[in-house]
Amino acid sequence: MKSHNVAMLGTGLIGDFYTMALHGQRNRDRVSVVYSRSEERGRAFTERWDISDFTTSLDEAITHPDVDTVVVGLPNFMHEEVIAAVADAGKAVLCTKPLARNGAEAKRILDKVESTGVFAGYLEDLCYTPKSLKAIETVRSGAIGDVTWVRSRETHPGPHSAWFWDKEKAGGGAIVDLGCHCIEIIRNFVGKENRPVEVMAWTDTLVHPIAAEDNAVALIRFESGALGQFEVSWTFRGGMDLRDEVAGTEGTIWLNHFLRTGFEMYSSGGGAGYVAEKLESTEGWLFPVGDEVSELGYTDMFTDMFDSMEDGREPQETFYDGYVVNAIMDAAYESASSRQWAPVDVEWRGGSTSRIEKKAGLHDGHGVVKEEILPDGRKKLMLSHKDTGEIFDLVTEG
Amino acid sequence: MKSHNVAMLGTGLIGDFYTMALHGQRNRDRVSVVYSRSEERGRAFTERWDISDFTTSLDEAITHPDVDTVVVGLPNFMHEEVIAAVADAGKAVLCTKPLARNGAEAKRILDKVESTGVFAGYLEDLCYTPKSLKAIETVRSGAIGDVTWVRSRETHPGPHSAWFWDKEKAGGGAIVDLGCHCIEIIRNFVGKENRPVEVMAWTDTLVHPIAAEDNAVALIRFESGALGQFEVSWTFRGGMDLRDEVAGTEGTIWLNHFLRTGFEMYSSGGGAGYVAEKLESTEGWLFPVGDEVSELGYTDMFTDMFDSMEDGREPQETFYDGYVVNAIMDAAYESASSRQWAPVDVEWRGGSTSRIEKKAGLHDGHGVVKEEILPDGRKKLMLSHKDTGEIFDLVTEG
Amino acid sequence: MKSHNVAMLGTGLIGDFYTMALHGQRNRDRVSVVYSRSEERGRAFTERWDISDFTTSLDEAITHPDVDTVVVGLPNFMHEEVIAAVADAGKAVLCTKPLARNGAEAKRILDKVESTGVFAGYLEDLCYTPKSLKAIETVRSGAIGDVTWVRSRETHPGPHSAWFWDKEKAGGGAIVDLGCHCIEIIRNFVGKENRPVEVMAWTDTLVHPIAAEDNAVALIRFESGALGQFEVSWTFRGGMDLRDEVAGTEGTIWLNHFLRTGFEMYSSGGGAGYVAEKLESTEGWLFPVGDEVSELGYTDMFTDMFDSMEDGREPQETFYDGYVVNAIMDAAYESASSRQWAPVDVEWRGGSTSRIEKKAGLHDGHGVVKEEILPDGRKKLMLSHKDTGEIFDLVTEG
Amino acid sequence: MKSHNVAMLGTGLIGDFYTMALHGQRNRDRVSVVYSRSEERGRAFTERWDISDFTTSLDEAITHPDVDTVVVGLPNFMHEEVIAAVADAGKAVLCTKPLARNGAEAKRILDKVESTGVFAGYLEDLCYTPKSLKAIETVRSGAIGDVTWVRSRETHPGPHSAWFWDKEKAGGGAIVDLGCHCIEIIRNFVGKENRPVEVMAWTDTLVHPIAAEDNAVALIRFESGALGQFEVSWTFRGGMDLRDEVAGTEGTIWLNHFLRTGFEMYSSGGGAGYVAEKLESTEGWLFPVGDEVSELGYTDMFTDMFDSMEDGREPQETFYDGYVVNAIMDAAYESASSRQWAPVDVEWRGGSTSRIEKKAGLHDGHGVVKEEILPDGRKKLMLSHKDTGEIFDLVTEG
Repeated sequence: MKSHNVAMLGTGLIGDFYTMALHGQRNRDRVSVVYSRSEERGRAFTERWDISDFTTSLDEAITHPDVDTVVVGLPNFMHEEVIAAVADAGKAVLCTKPLARNGAEAKRILDKVESTGVFAGYLEDLCYTPKSLKAIETVRSGAIGDVTWVRSRETHPGPHSAWFWDKEKAGGGAIVDLGCHCIEIIRNFVGKENRPVEVMAWTDTLVHPIAAEDNAVALIRFESGALGQFEVSWTFRGGMDLRDEVAGTEGTIWLNHFLRTGFEMYSSGGGAGYVAEKLESTEGWLFPVGDEVSELGYTDMFTDMFDSMEDGREPQETFYDGYVVNAIMDAAYESASSRQWAPVDVEWRGGSTSRIEKKAGLHDGHGVVKEEILPDGRKKLMLSHKDTGEIFDLVTEG
Repeated sequence: MKSHNVAMLGTGLIGDFYTMALHGQRNRDRVSVVYSRSEERGRAFTERWDISDFTTSLDEAITHPDVDTVVVGLPNFMHEEVIAAVADAGKAVLCTKPLARNGAEAKRILDKVESTGVFAGYLEDLCYTPKSLKAIETVRSGAIGDVTWVRSRETHPGPHSAWFWDKEKAGGGAIVDLGCHCIEIIRNFVGKENRPVEVMAWTDTLVHPIAAEDNAVALIRFESGALGQFEVSWTFRGGMDLRDEVAGTEGTIWLNHFLRTGFEMYSSGGGAGYVAEKLESTEGWLFPVGDEVSELGYTDMFTDMFDSMEDGREPQETFYDGYVVNAIMDAAYESASSRQWAPVDVEWRGGSTSRIEKKAGLHDGHGVVKEEILPDGRKKLMLSHKDTGEIFDLVTEG
Repeated sequence: MKSHNVAMLGTGLIGDFYTMALHGQRNRDRVSVVYSRSEERGRAFTERWDISDFTTSLDEAITHPDVDTVVVGLPNFMHEEVIAAVADAGKAVLCTKPLARNGAEAKRILDKVESTGVFAGYLEDLCYTPKSLKAIETVRSGAIGDVTWVRSRETHPGPHSAWFWDKEKAGGGAIVDLGCHCIEIIRNFVGKENRPVEVMAWTDTLVHPIAAEDNAVALIRFESGALGQFEVSWTFRGGMDLRDEVAGTEGTIWLNHFLRTGFEMYSSGGGAGYVAEKLESTEGWLFPVGDEVSELGYTDMFTDMFDSMEDGREPQETFYDGYVVNAIMDAAYESASSRQWAPVDVEWRGGSTSRIEKKAGLHDGHGVVKEEILPDGRKKLMLSHKDTGEIFDLVTEG
Repeated sequence: MKSHNVAMLGTGLIGDFYTMALHGQRNRDRVSVVYSRSEERGRAFTERWDISDFTTSLDEAITHPDVDTVVVGLPNFMHEEVIAAVADAGKAVLCTKPLARNGAEAKRILDKVESTGVFAGYLEDLCYTPKSLKAIETVRSGAIGDVTWVRSRETHPGPHSAWFWDKEKAGGGAIVDLGCHCIEIIRNFVGKENRPVEVMAWTDTLVHPIAAEDNAVALIRFESGALGQFEVSWTFRGGMDLRDEVAGTEGTIWLNHFLRTGFEMYSSGGGAGYVAEKLESTEGWLFPVGDEVSELGYTDMFTDMFDSMEDGREPQETFYDGYVVNAIMDAAYESASSRQWAPVDVEWRGGSTSRIEKKAGLHDGHGVVKEEILPDGRKKLMLSHKDTGEIFDLVTEG
């Protein structure tokens, strides 16, 4: 039974979540050293999580002799340089989302890790939530037929550190922060071999005094004909809305990861102490989540990363996936600017996917548009005429 | 206490719903005469609803001496001609949705009723659901601040008569059948004074052997900056999905009109008889609606129509609204073809709406992007620098 | 088309709801005269509802020449005397719930109206909610098999007038106020011909400084073996919880009438004006109801009452039903005191109901306790041995 | 970092769940040896879970040299003998629920492990679900005030092995199988220091051809005045219903562990392959759970057990808790037989809990029953008169 020693780069919210997962339950992997630019935040982090070593030197953290795996939990603008250093040190690298600020940067990162041959995993937690994993498996088994449409939504009142809000450092606004999740969720449902062809996006800055977009909606057209749709916002009121909806020719899947998961609480405000974490209010009806680190996918994500490393296979989410996501976000920004559908510019490795199959049966040679059973037991057919294409009703004796 | 005698034109599903509403509870208005092209369907309809008179002559129905109000429940391609006849007969006319097959046709209809001065009401039932009415009132009161985004979704497995599926007779596909509802719901939430500026739409025919679209998603940009978004489908599995979501700067509203309204039922399939109406399945978990005619808005809709008629005021939903909806649908089709945002071409009467207000406060002259309370009670500010616009964190003593 | 003129006795919350229903939508019946003990409240009521006549004389209201139907919306301790006066006046009488303060009083009321032959209806609104009506119809059709268990729950933070809290005037506490609803809902689901045999109840006064119970749970055993269970509370936090659950041998029904009906709203508290009615909070997540007067059953209740009157049949809810409910509540109080199951003392008219049928099939003469399909396709039987009754597993080739 | 080697006794459904938890994610503990009465089932189990050693000898499994912890996943009637053997072997023992078939048996088990001093943990998984853990912490913090009522419900269509259905081997029916969960959940919410005083229960055998009860409802009165209520059934249709509801003087908590957790799926039945586990149907709306082993508490349960063992402290759920649960179930059966409240006969170690505090404020010396704000801003008080106790309304200027 192997275990891993991790260098954790970064002590922000995401560093906390990653370490909570790694040190959670009876997990056998551990964070051995932490890097933070800030002495104060770094010390607090090691105490919070019972970690022995701390450093303000990136190089020291990466080359720490105990460490075999480096987790990059740093702001977007630092990814390229830091990942290159990890790759040069010959260690496994796991990078938080998004992989980069744009497709070109992502491609350089991908090339670097591929040229050095180190293990690289893309820490896209929301593709690893237990619900997502089971739903993706269900969809791939064919249980809902061909996927026609996927909606993924991530909205909340905005991130917790300045750099997220800075277009230059982050590479964009709500799309780069939240849309990256949605896009990869959509890809998992429509199939990763299903090429994203083009994107149409709306972006606007409606509420916050920033240059980046605080709201966006985008449509992604895939080779099969399936449509992906994402909605992101930094102005949502009511907590964090994390929902995915999948429509198929034989079924439907709806996932709610945060606000309606079977935990409902009313507080009059008159009680004592602690209510629940991460809520905009502490009165009225609240919707806590049982175990966030599990429900948000962190646990299953690290399991896949380390198991893949040990088994010598690729994880579910790779740097190539991160690169595709960046390419789709580039197209979204281009579309928002050109006000047209923008093609996705990506070096495609995913093969090709055939068009969603039209399932029309025939009745006397006419295409069956729909059939219904009438209350009296007879069957009503709506038929497309074999010669004229005109559509007509026909009632038969069932 | 006045009451009205109605000529019901059309005996399809919508005629049944209208009559169920008019003859429901202790309602004081009645259908006096029915028109159907089919002798058989017409006779069955009069028996089903206990109506005395039936005719296969449109003219006879319209000019029936008892009748003061004509309800048009006929296929889209017949609206213009029939409404003109009613207007010429000087009677009140209530027309089902959509008003017409396109904006030009709708404009001619509008001009006709305005020139004759008859009372005209647009039977947009889904803007009259009890939930919608209360939610619209709540939004208008300012309770959720400025509306930034509205999603309206209507999907089901497809309509019940051939003409709906026929692009020529209907004027389009799922957009014309379902999107017309969504658009007017969106307008009620963003404000009817808020001009629809332009539309971006995706349409496709993914499953059914028809020329019209069976799936569509569209974005509507309004003058205030608010975004409307509608999703329609004739290929949804699982019943009828009718949901609206409204985001505002101070709150959120989510409405579910059909599949999750507090009535849940599991059937093993081993019981006797009747289960529930309008369900794709009769086994497994089912989600009936208590009183469809009320929940879908028919009851409140006719109340508004007849009360408005008696009070000499316009109803909530007018032919002008129907015309605006058609103009927006035209823009959607144009966008689907041009693959660009398409302007909404409409003779606008609604006035103008100011841009959603950015609410940034100031701290030492810097714009406040966000503020949070830290666990130790201190306040964390994310600020946009007054000179450079750069965003930085500042922790204060609360 | 007949219509009715009503004398409304009482101007409390229930009088408002009744009048809202009677004057709602396009209803053809009207309140003609109002009685209130208070000049001030009576005047306000007539203005609120546009009613012409008001009186502080019960006798004047009852004998008002326009009036054919008297609605009793007065405190429980006044029912007997007032109903007798209406019966003597020979007018139809509709009485709010509960019918009386105890079974003996209810029996005298029942005897009085039966001896005078006037139409009498029991205004048990929660048995007339659209969801309840459809669910009851579904259950009666056999769709969920034999009913084994019904839970009905009504809880809120307590009533709005002093007399409700007064054990003597009301006849009890939360059971008399809320349990009367639950009991009649349960009877509708287990079948009104299904005799309530005995009751076991827990009551306590946990929070409020009153003599009556503010919390109670009771179990009612019916002749068929079915169990009814009600939970009532005047100390619930979070609004009004109105839920019913029905278990049958072939299915399950869950109804939620108030807190989760597909209308969800988040308010930051920073918006303007009106939020929504009847909520404990105006911040956080709120759950308004679209049209309370319809959703709570008032509309369908008066329709049934007046239609029954006109058709010369009994309404769904009769004074006999009200009497049975009182008898069951008496047994609940007796049980709370004796700490044993208490028999229901009632003059039973409902016939008899056979025991829930055990459905055991046979396999080689052994009773089939359960059968399951194993993952490999074989069938697993749990059998009750024909001779010994011992239970054993048997795996067969399916 | 310590890890543990487990002997797994039993290869039924519970053995699978336990091993799925122990071998799940990156867990560091492992099952080293398996015991099964059946060679075939034992072999299949070791292959399924990649376990090296298997034996049909209980003694061999318990005394296996690698093993430090024995997990008892055997039928109830075997617990006492097997636990004694483990205790004599001086190994840690973790026993599935219920601890025993009755209180006397449970007490002997408790005495045995206490006399030998081995670590003993009660595997009550449903008290360890992530939702339960967070909810219990919330309640203990005082956030919902004093707990007044707890409902815990567990129902499904019946267990998967013959011995469960056998009253002698199991110790009872649905109460012993399912009620044991509910009781301990209730104890966690009302407080483990809160003595269970007496029980009132209804049991019946409505559907299955067995001697044991297939349905039961029971009320448990605690020293504080709080009421616990459990509902169990082996005849529920629609999957597995696992819900808990907690009412407090300042708030409310509702938990749903299985059927409505934010994963909703519709299947037409026309798709391919796999749908989802543990569902009664494969068509219609289905409600899968993301990660059952986590959501049902197995993961957190073993974490608590092994962490407690290593830290030298008691786990959350002890054999003493198991004994209290058995004592409460004994009282439930006694009550079902005597048809009265039955006292709970237990050697109580939990201390005492004061009565739920009545919170009445005073207004001019009168007790405040309730206060409300009227629409006009005035305050309405319902007061209990200081001398007479009579309740009266008083409207003040707010």
